[in-house]
Amino acid sequence: MSADKSKTLLLGVDLGGTDTKLGLVSDAGKILDQMKIPTRADKPARDVIERIAAALKKLLKRNRVQPADILGIGFGSPGPLSTKRGVVIDTPNLGWKNVPVRTWLRELIDLPMVLHNDANAAAYGEFWKGAGRGSEVMVLYTLGTGVGGGICLNNDLWVGPGENAAELGHMVINFNGPQCPCGNYGCLEAHASAKAVVRNALGEIAMGRETSLRKLKLEDVTAKRVFEAAKAGDKVAQRIFHRVGWALGLASGNLVNILNAEMFVFGGAMSGAWEFLYDAIVEGCRASILAMPISKIKFVRAQLGENAGIIGAAGLALKEFGA
Amino acid sequence: MSADKSKTLLLGVDLGGTDTKLGLVSDAGKILDQMKIPTRADKPARDVIERIAAALKKLLKRNRVQPADILGIGFGSPGPLSTKRGVVIDTPNLGWKNVPVRTWLRELIDLPMVLHNDANAAAYGEFWKGAGRGSEVMVLYTLGTGVGGGICLNNDLWVGPGENAAELGHMVINFNGPQCPCGNYGCLEAHASAKAVVRNALGEIAMGRETSLRKLKLEDVTAKRVFEAAKAGDKVAQRIFHRVGWALGLASGNLVNILNAEMFVFGGAMSGAWEFLYDAIVEGCRASILAMPISKIKFVRAQLGENAGIIGAAGLALKEFGA
Repeated sequence: MSADKSKTLLLGVDLGGTDTKLGLVSDAGKILDQMKIPTRADKPARDVIERIAAALKKLLKRNRVQPADILGIGFGSPGPLSTKRGVVIDTPNLGWKNVPVRTWLRELIDLPMVLHNDANAAAYGEFWKGAGRGSEVMVLYTLGTGVGGGICLNNDLWVGPGENAAELGHMVINFNGPQCPCGNYGCLEAHASAKAVVRNALGEIAMGRETSLRKLKLEDVTAKRVFEAAKAGDKVAQRIFHRVGWALGLASGNLVNILNAEMFVFGGAMSGAWEFLYDAIVEGCRASILAMPISKIKFVRAQLGENAGIIGAAGLALKEFGA
Repeated sequence: MSADKSKTLLLGVDLGGTDTKLGLVSDAGKILDQMKIPTRADKPARDVIERIAAALKKLLKRNRVQPADILGIGFGSPGPLSTKRGVVIDTPNLGWKNVPVRTWLRELIDLPMVLHNDANAAAYGEFWKGAGRGSEVMVLYTLGTGVGGGICLNNDLWVGPGENAAELGHMVINFNGPQCPCGNYGCLEAHASAKAVVRNALGEIAMGRETSLRKLKLEDVTAKRVFEAAKAGDKVAQRIFHRVGWALGLASGNLVNILNAEMFVFGGAMSGAWEFLYDAIVEGCRASILAMPISKIKFVRAQLGENAGIIGAAGLALKEFGA
């Protein structure tokens, strides 16, 4: 890639189902300015891209930055997608199929752009400027309704030859276990997602366990409510999170055995239950690692919060278009 | 590394519990000459290394090759070991602890040497000159009493920051499953090793299933016997191998989801049961992959047989000391 040393600014985009975050980011990974716009996924994809382009222009204008001062745009989107082709292939939560994001954006704002999976962009953000700095093999889990992930190694994001690596939520750890939303059985996601927390909570209630959750209406049994109960001292609720942590630790142990991963970073809403997860993560990992001592493996919370996506996307643009 | 373009020859060593194989290998990966010596693991480690050095000198002499014509030695050994330090840390089947193989060998034969795990050396051999040629992410399984492995990516062997990556046999796929010799539960090795075949055969007999294996003495129930029964049409024996294949396929699916691995190579004695494994491998993998189509994933038998270790070790020496 040609690189103009005088250009030190980047644009990062984090496209979400509800909101899209945009950032003007320095080559040191500092957010200089940012904005958030509604994605409006109900509108045609072209419409969404046009509003993102307009917002990026606004962001440049209010910072008195010329497009010529920008090295490139990093764009994080739900996948699956192709970085090589710059195309979002199929994202159920946006309803997009084969959307040529790079081509369209280039028509609207004349800057080079690199497209990446949003969880991967967040992983690179944490690796570049967050909790994973300096690690050789870093794994990010995004814990939410599902379980996403990203892997950084060799000082780079690992996307794999099929461009869809790091589907960590669908690592099978218990093939006779509960069915995952993906259809398969015993995936990590079936044990460590917010949905798994709800399933376990309902299971405990069904079994007649003594828990404050019994009093809730069915629709009110959410991972958040289970967390609140755990905070309030509910032992059953605490045990549910312990099981989530143990499954995450076991899956992490697999990644230690496979890759010698040594830094595990936990982001996403469910990582807020850290106080009920951490010990169990260590316990689950210790049970499954073979040759690497547990003392060499770190388990930490993500540091960049909501900004991991735009910082990581900008970092990936720097990697692609920088010197 | 400095490299002398005129040197095109390598030495490969494959240290085993019973025999040690040595090869004079060209930089094109061709074995020009080879020999096999008894390892004599009952003797002190220094003794073993001295006999290996003497054999290497003999190999050079009978080929009229000077040490000065050799780029370097690649040495494959059972692990765990440290490539960085050139030390075998702890190998139960040799009874070695902290043996400084590189230092000792260098005292006896003045050539640079690189030490690698034997399964990793075999993996690199298959990647460089065998069944895995041209793949972007290749996984080798060595199927025997246990399940070993190696991973090649980015055109190199992946050893990981802890130097003990690719312990594929200890990937947990069934955490409520049978106990593995390592102590943990539901490892791939507990489902896909020769020991697992025997356990499953005994289980079928115990359950009163109709199988020719019933007539054997307990000590005669071996993986080889189960294979022979399968060959002779025994449906129960065939189903046992089907289960092994399915577990290997499932574990492979995990590696597709994690790394986008796209080439799986199966070596070791148990891969001889390929005709009863292949369909089940594909089935198990198809069940667990998320975003990569099964058509893009290859499952093949290893091609280099017993020579994978010396060819791979030589290839790793070429990588380390070559131009």
